[in-house]
Amino acid sequence: MPFLDMETIGYDTVNNKAVFVDQTQLPAKYIEVFTDDFDEMYEAVKNLRVRGAPAIGVFAAISLAVLVNKTNDKDLKKQFFDYADRFISCRPTAVNLAWAIKKCKNTAENSDDIQRDLKNLALQMIEEDIQICRQIGENGAKLLSKCNAVLTHCNAGRLATVKYGTALAPIYIAKEKGHNISVYADETRPLLQGARLTCYELQTAGVDTTLICDNAASAVMKKGLVDAVVVGCDRVALNGDTANKVGTSVLAILASEYNIPFYVCMPFSTFDKDIKDGSQIPIEERNSDEIISICYKENIVAKGVKTLNYAFDVTDHKFITAFVTEKGIIKPSEIRNYCKN
Amino acid sequence: MPFLDMETIGYDTVNNKAVFVDQTQLPAKYIEVFTDDFDEMYEAVKNLRVRGAPAIGVFAAISLAVLVNKTNDKDLKKQFFDYADRFISCRPTAVNLAWAIKKCKNTAENSDDIQRDLKNLALQMIEEDIQICRQIGENGAKLLSKCNAVLTHCNAGRLATVKYGTALAPIYIAKEKGHNISVYADETRPLLQGARLTCYELQTAGVDTTLICDNAASAVMKKGLVDAVVVGCDRVALNGDTANKVGTSVLAILASEYNIPFYVCMPFSTFDKDIKDGSQIPIEERNSDEIISICYKENIVAKGVKTLNYAFDVTDHKFITAFVTEKGIIKPSEIRNYCKN
Repeated sequence: MPFLDMETIGYDTVNNKAVFVDQTQLPAKYIEVFTDDFDEMYEAVKNLRVRGAPAIGVFAAISLAVLVNKTNDKDLKKQFFDYADRFISCRPTAVNLAWAIKKCKNTAENSDDIQRDLKNLALQMIEEDIQICRQIGENGAKLLSKCNAVLTHCNAGRLATVKYGTALAPIYIAKEKGHNISVYADETRPLLQGARLTCYELQTAGVDTTLICDNAASAVMKKGLVDAVVVGCDRVALNGDTANKVGTSVLAILASEYNIPFYVCMPFSTFDKDIKDGSQIPIEERNSDEIISICYKENIVAKGVKTLNYAFDVTDHKFITAFVTEKGIIKPSEIRNYCKN
Repeated sequence: MPFLDMETIGYDTVNNKAVFVDQTQLPAKYIEVFTDDFDEMYEAVKNLRVRGAPAIGVFAAISLAVLVNKTNDKDLKKQFFDYADRFISCRPTAVNLAWAIKKCKNTAENSDDIQRDLKNLALQMIEEDIQICRQIGENGAKLLSKCNAVLTHCNAGRLATVKYGTALAPIYIAKEKGHNISVYADETRPLLQGARLTCYELQTAGVDTTLICDNAASAVMKKGLVDAVVVGCDRVALNGDTANKVGTSVLAILASEYNIPFYVCMPFSTFDKDIKDGSQIPIEERNSDEIISICYKENIVAKGVKTLNYAFDVTDHKFITAFVTEKGIIKPSEIRNYCKN
């Protein structure tokens, strides 16, 4: 019996373990990992065994709660802040990780029982993430009410959150309401999250899914096969510039050329009030092994060839039709107003 | 001692064999295949062991010459036309294959010694291809005289022609003249010709080369890392619409957005006078195995997921700065005039 149902991460409070589905093993194997070890938690996020901006935020909160509940050392607070500061360096682009850790720190600072309070915070964040994604799905499903098919990039589905996902939440909610939307999934090199994860989770949920190479997006749009593009994101600046998986800005520019709406679906917390525009978003460069070998197994490139491996790119706000959040549909020009409230 | 020097295909007239470098084995192994068997020739082109629009045209001419020189059957002409008609179905998008076979047919029809004449035609076509590519290189090198770096897609280098290549010819000729241009190479999913072939041939020639995932093209352009895009092509309609490896139209649209010139380099014969615009170019769909597995080895996708595998796309002429041919630099609007001559 798996511990998780349709969730991707969880908190085993009985045994005090953080739980995650190891996404580097999908779709070949479904493996749940139970851990209370900081190094394993850190490595899991660093190496994308846990991934997706919302999921890693919540996973960090669960992990920190597990870690402080593991011992009865005197100086729990000091230990917590040490773990929190180390965790934050793990993935620099996603705002949710920093946001979640900040939330944990605020709780810890004002707490007289950080074991209890961090545990409750983590459980609350799990529940909130599920509710937020469901509401993104409700709002997005209305927006896509006339769509037959969408194109998506990378994985912004339930495997990137606790449940439902962000970009794929509207597909799941629409399906619940009897409206079947087909999905074209970019395979998403280098790490093939689209091929490995998006196709897996959509197929498991009974959604009609077609896998394409990233290169085919232009041809698919030109043929009129998709009515919208839906993606998730890692961080949005106040002007609407959006960091997401490398290749997202390609789709946005193509969609603009072919007059197809381009929707970014994410929790409202992904708006980064501290950043004016995309030039201020740090872009993670990852190891060249991700390109040189396929699935880390077979070298496809002559020895000694240089690589450049941006993990993300920044999509200019002018190519984004709207952001789909739990608080509603927000245009790039409306972000500043929303963030004032 | 290899039979070929820096060439990709050849004609072993002593032993009457068509010779090719098996490109599905690169970069791991350099293997020259010698053959006088129709099925092997056909299979080699079909399965991209010989590939690149100019190369497969010349290879077809060599193959047909080898086949008619193999026997002394009475009805050589009938046999030749049978082989020629079967060969033409092999790859539907490239105009050069049809063009080369038509040339062979014309020669055969008017010949009283088709063994001698087809052999001479093949040798002449080899030489012509080398000269044409060299001239494309000369013309392109002038055009790129102020470029530090270019981005290219797929492989339109010497491995796609007899020698020098089309899109990469300007890089080689510029280098001969002391001007080193760096190359960013798209890996080019699904079959990774950029990673496997372009990086191999550039590295072998001492050109500074950086491999990127196709998805990173937008980020690379935005960062100002490349001054131009150079690609080859399989067929150009009279209005300038251009069929080439899937993903080419992506780069063209991106380049237009970032104000980077987009050059298509190819033999003049790639203009198809019979086709008015891109909608008339047949687009080959290839086997889903190319996407589902990586290098035909490891399945990366859950079972039963559908795929759509366009091998080519058509780039709208409005995104093309110029065509670089052996007859000079030609703008899309000038094609009709050039083709009248």
